[in-house]
Amino acid sequence: MKEFNDLGDFQIEEVKALLELATRLEHNPEPRALAGKVLALLFLSPSLRTLASFQAAMVRLGGGSFVISPDMSIHGLETRPGIVMDGMAAEHIREAVPVIASYGDAIGIRAFAQRENLESEIADEEFNKLKELCDIPRINMESAINHPCQSLADWKTMDDFGVPANGGKFVLSWAYHPRALPLAVPSATVHMAAMRGMDVTVLRPEGFELPEPVMHKARQAAAMSGGSVTETDDRAAALEGANIIYAKSWMSTRHYGNLPADAEARRGREDWCVDEPWFDTAAADARFMHCLPVRRGVVVADRILDGPRSIVIPEARNRMYAQMAVLHQMLR
Amino acid sequence: MKEFNDLGDFQIEEVKALLELATRLEHNPEPRALAGKVLALLFLSPSLRTLASFQAAMVRLGGGSFVISPDMSIHGLETRPGIVMDGMAAEHIREAVPVIASYGDAIGIRAFAQRENLESEIADEEFNKLKELCDIPRINMESAINHPCQSLADWKTMDDFGVPANGGKFVLSWAYHPRALPLAVPSATVHMAAMRGMDVTVLRPEGFELPEPVMHKARQAAAMSGGSVTETDDRAAALEGANIIYAKSWMSTRHYGNLPADAEARRGREDWCVDEPWFDTAAADARFMHCLPVRRGVVVADRILDGPRSIVIPEARNRMYAQMAVLHQMLR
Amino acid sequence: MKEFNDLGDFQIEEVKALLELATRLEHNPEPRALAGKVLALLFLSPSLRTLASFQAAMVRLGGGSFVISPDMSIHGLETRPGIVMDGMAAEHIREAVPVIASYGDAIGIRAFAQRENLESEIADEEFNKLKELCDIPRINMESAINHPCQSLADWKTMDDFGVPANGGKFVLSWAYHPRALPLAVPSATVHMAAMRGMDVTVLRPEGFELPEPVMHKARQAAAMSGGSVTETDDRAAALEGANIIYAKSWMSTRHYGNLPADAEARRGREDWCVDEPWFDTAAADARFMHCLPVRRGVVVADRILDGPRSIVIPEARNRMYAQMAVLHQMLR
Repeated sequence: MKEFNDLGDFQIEEVKALLELATRLEHNPEPRALAGKVLALLFLSPSLRTLASFQAAMVRLGGGSFVISPDMSIHGLETRPGIVMDGMAAEHIREAVPVIASYGDAIGIRAFAQRENLESEIADEEFNKLKELCDIPRINMESAINHPCQSLADWKTMDDFGVPANGGKFVLSWAYHPRALPLAVPSATVHMAAMRGMDVTVLRPEGFELPEPVMHKARQAAAMSGGSVTETDDRAAALEGANIIYAKSWMSTRHYGNLPADAEARRGREDWCVDEPWFDTAAADARFMHCLPVRRGVVVADRILDGPRSIVIPEARNRMYAQMAVLHQMLR
Repeated sequence: MKEFNDLGDFQIEEVKALLELATRLEHNPEPRALAGKVLALLFLSPSLRTLASFQAAMVRLGGGSFVISPDMSIHGLETRPGIVMDGMAAEHIREAVPVIASYGDAIGIRAFAQRENLESEIADEEFNKLKELCDIPRINMESAINHPCQSLADWKTMDDFGVPANGGKFVLSWAYHPRALPLAVPSATVHMAAMRGMDVTVLRPEGFELPEPVMHKARQAAAMSGGSVTETDDRAAALEGANIIYAKSWMSTRHYGNLPADAEARRGREDWCVDEPWFDTAAADARFMHCLPVRRGVVVADRILDGPRSIVIPEARNRMYAQMAVLHQMLR
Repeated sequence: MKEFNDLGDFQIEEVKALLELATRLEHNPEPRALAGKVLALLFLSPSLRTLASFQAAMVRLGGGSFVISPDMSIHGLETRPGIVMDGMAAEHIREAVPVIASYGDAIGIRAFAQRENLESEIADEEFNKLKELCDIPRINMESAINHPCQSLADWKTMDDFGVPANGGKFVLSWAYHPRALPLAVPSATVHMAAMRGMDVTVLRPEGFELPEPVMHKARQAAAMSGGSVTETDDRAAALEGANIIYAKSWMSTRHYGNLPADAEARRGREDWCVDEPWFDTAAADARFMHCLPVRRGVVVADRILDGPRSIVIPEARNRMYAQMAVLHQMLR
């Protein structure tokens, strides 16, 4: 495996093999598998779970990692092409990124969603620009429009908890949030659940439709897997029979890049906070998922997060096992 | 061993076994003992020695670690229960801490002494709240009222330098300092020296008495070990025959949580700086100890720190060996 | 090997043995060579390449490292001797550095060039003060006047690309830069190229002469190796027949420590930016080198950096292999 940038680059059977490997490594440690191997971790936006889970993954496989973030450079990194660098930035990504990559056997890259130009972000231009500067195996640690490590962990978590694949109902629900958040997780999640063969409903208010290319990609995955994908603002219909309610906030796609208009579109939507009533007509053993970090009392009620429906902690833990499988396939 | 939160949780023989293991690991490295094992390090207040000594300890045993501090989260971590998180904090410790723990085989936690409510800090409420969020073995890397890793290292250091246990005189002396410092080290130290069987004198000005629960715990340890514990402001009597002068500043317990009153209580106490005359009537081979960091010329004179009485560097080094023993017992 | 502070401390044959070891480790990994060994990394000024390449080097050899920078201490580190520490700094380097060293099997130190007192910096007083506080093997990770790890990597890079040693022409060219930069890299580089037996020309405008002690040391190395060292401001003569053009900016030595005078001396020198015409009379296969970070369009034109003459990425990568050789010799 030379790249792990998008779950959509893989066949369903390839993903299932990765998940089997993840579960094997969870139960049968291989503390010498990657002895002497180095993972470079490049963070262009901050992280807690991703940093910790990747560093832990490398240690568990007997290797190691190092972390670079732009604030470690004297005055940040320049990204614009062809510029005369007589300002603050002392280094250009065209040197910094290949050099960082040159010290690793693989590189994980977290890019930053500017939340300004929707088209550019759907094309994942920033992440692609960065990854093309590296000639070693590379891993998308969250880009403007994707988060394949989260998706692989989410898939494993549903397997672990016996959530049905074909025939299972997956509701990705928009949630209220005081800030305008990127599209990475919802875009990756709708595709992942469709690829797993589930009947996926995107539940969101008007103005928060997922972009058509995102929905198209998910529908194509569903066509291959036997699943389905729909989008609605009818909460009652969406939640009926749900096996999974996966909450996530994202910026208004109708007003993408326009913060005041986005804030206006979100105004009064505080009731988009997952709580007990959301599960009234769901499957008896329906589960609550979220990629974390999550705002309590805003995105989801405490009693859900602290109750038996929530599987957010095992979900976060599976980041580590999913990434161990990816690293094992890349570097072994 | 599932917890290393307080030396008081252990029998004297258990501590001695830990110290033997620490000395064995110092002289006979075991660079494969913890292959593939991960220590999560959670710092809620900054650190230099603790960070370095724990990271080095894991490498020496063949494992690894990762570090999380709240400033790595986008806007800090929320700690209040039941709050609607519509402010700055994007994550609650109720998710962050279990997730961090889920990536480790053990977790070290450094909590923050608010220095506001003495009763709450004596009960170590903040640390206990954090550790209860983790279901893996946990280590107290300094809490509001305790510092068992420092105490284990201090005990080893006295053994290394042949300081007598039963019959040895240990003086814990308050020292001047421009800031109001926590009670963690003095509280842990007086208990440790008593548990080691020493005759312990707490030397401090009026208003800086150690809290009664702290003294009570130390006296109980002394009763088991054959040592003794007293408290005084009579410097001449306290220092006579001392084998160890252990300097440490702490906030006024009479004015705990009241910074102006504490500053007033410290005013004019600049002579509480350990210097040559303090050793005039001490044992001939009396030693100076301090947990570091130490303010030169304020807490202790340069000529003491730079002279043959000071064992602060080996004392700091023993942090690593003491922690290696704890980790070895926890994770092997 | 107990110290790697200056290439000048070694015989030519010793350097060649290090380079052979570096190349061997590049092609034949030894992922267990330094199992359980710890490298302490002390950064008194920020770093990206040095941090990443040392951390990766230790992982590739089966050991590990930890990183300390002064901002990790509560209020920075005090460096002045004999001071009463009643201000902000809570710790003195006289404790902090020996303690950090006590956790490692070797220590790398990056000191800070104040760019104030030329004589003190040529004597490398700051670095020497720090290293004398450590009683374990130590590595200069860049000091005020030296950068032996960079030099070892540069030498290896020229070997890798078949750049002639004796008879090869090495031009170290001053370059324009908006800021006043230290003398570490130019001083180390002129010495390294001379020691390699090359004919070295330092090309710089008036006022930017390298200090006489630096030139003297390089000439002595040339006398041993059969090389030569000259200095000029005649660009046409300097570049003719060059095998290497190595660009680097540095502060005016005539106005050292005087920022306004230095800025005045640099004014109008924007044409000191290496570009295609610089290679017109150079050797056909002449190469461009730079230690990085480099300012594009200021120090060197994009078409050079992005073209076939530039070997800056392999040069940076060789930092890792050069340091692996040093660590292997120190800690094996």
